[in-house]
Amino acid sequence: MSSKDLQAQIDFIVEVDKLKNVFRQTSLIDDGRAENDAEHSWHLSLMAILLSGYVDKNIDLLRVLKMLLIHDIVEIDAGDTFVYDEIAYKHKEEREQKAAERIFKMLPQDQALELRELWNEFEERETEDARYATALDRFQPILLNFHTNGVAWKRHGVTRDQVISRNEHISDSSPKLWEYAKSLIDEAVEKGYLKK
Amino acid sequence: MSSKDLQAQIDFIVEVDKLKNVFRQTSLIDDGRAENDAEHSWHLSLMAILLSGYVDKNIDLLRVLKMLLIHDIVEIDAGDTFVYDEIAYKHKEEREQKAAERIFKMLPQDQALELRELWNEFEERETEDARYATALDRFQPILLNFHTNGVAWKRHGVTRDQVISRNEHISDSSPKLWEYAKSLIDEAVEKGYLKK
Repeated sequence: MSSKDLQAQIDFIVEVDKLKNVFRQTSLIDDGRAENDAEHSWHLSLMAILLSGYVDKNIDLLRVLKMLLIHDIVEIDAGDTFVYDEIAYKHKEEREQKAAERIFKMLPQDQALELRELWNEFEERETEDARYATALDRFQPILLNFHTNGVAWKRHGVTRDQVISRNEHISDSSPKLWEYAKSLIDEAVEKGYLKK
Repeated sequence: MSSKDLQAQIDFIVEVDKLKNVFRQTSLIDDGRAENDAEHSWHLSLMAILLSGYVDKNIDLLRVLKMLLIHDIVEIDAGDTFVYDEIAYKHKEEREQKAAERIFKMLPQDQALELRELWNEFEERETEDARYATALDRFQPILLNFHTNGVAWKRHGVTRDQVISRNEHISDSSPKLWEYAKSLIDEAVEKGYLKK
């Protein structure tokens, strides 16, 4: 690696500091402020380490962690799209591809390529690594929503059917985690956090 | 893994959400609010992926990432200790060992043991993996301080010698990253961000 490469990497590291100010719909458990993408990515990465025993297929944990650590970086430009906002979701891919083009290209060529390909893999959800990473990306907000009395679900009038249909692919990676998530969803309906 | 194990892991995952509200002395580049431990841990983990080419020794990136993702979890109980606060530093180890005892033990036994050992290894800084992880833990705040005009350094009247002595162990892992850090420190003195 040359000094030019190092400066490019530092510029990228400084640029992605912005992810700490991209806020999501989900609230933190303690004080209810909105979660940001950087801390969300940290939480998912830690979950990936702890919960890999619930995936029956072979996964490469290092690749999963790389995916999770970078999966939201495009939101520096594209913003967070709420998973139940069907209109915004239509233009999500276009906005995010443009952001990926700018942000990953700040890096030296080999790293730009590696991270861009990992990000594409995450988005396409066709490999076991990507299925596990995306399962966690759906499981964690369910946990936070449940433990904040469904504040984000209530704000947007989200229904049980929407939550089931947007998240059931968790079971493609881990039937056990999906079973747990479904038990929370059912309890959330009973408690009035989610509409029937 | 049993259902009891899964519930213990979920309880841990919910507990560590609190790390998102443990604030550090370092400020974010864009808006100057204090950085929290969760987003700091994310930033270091991403840096570990990008900068491993500057370490000459063999490192196991997956172990480094695990260390970085958990290294600050004890601060949920023990709070953040500013690296240049010499009085608070004296009691840091005792407070943090007690926190490690409570928090990691929430997990199933094998995971509790693995993470506790990784955390000890990080703290002891005797393996190449721990040297790289701790080097990043020192390098990142230098970057943020430099790019926020030294706001945290100025607030505490930190001197160049303090920064050199607290951080020079970066070179044990990577002379190249320490060379870069030193160039920032020298420029910070010139610009008045750091006292001579």
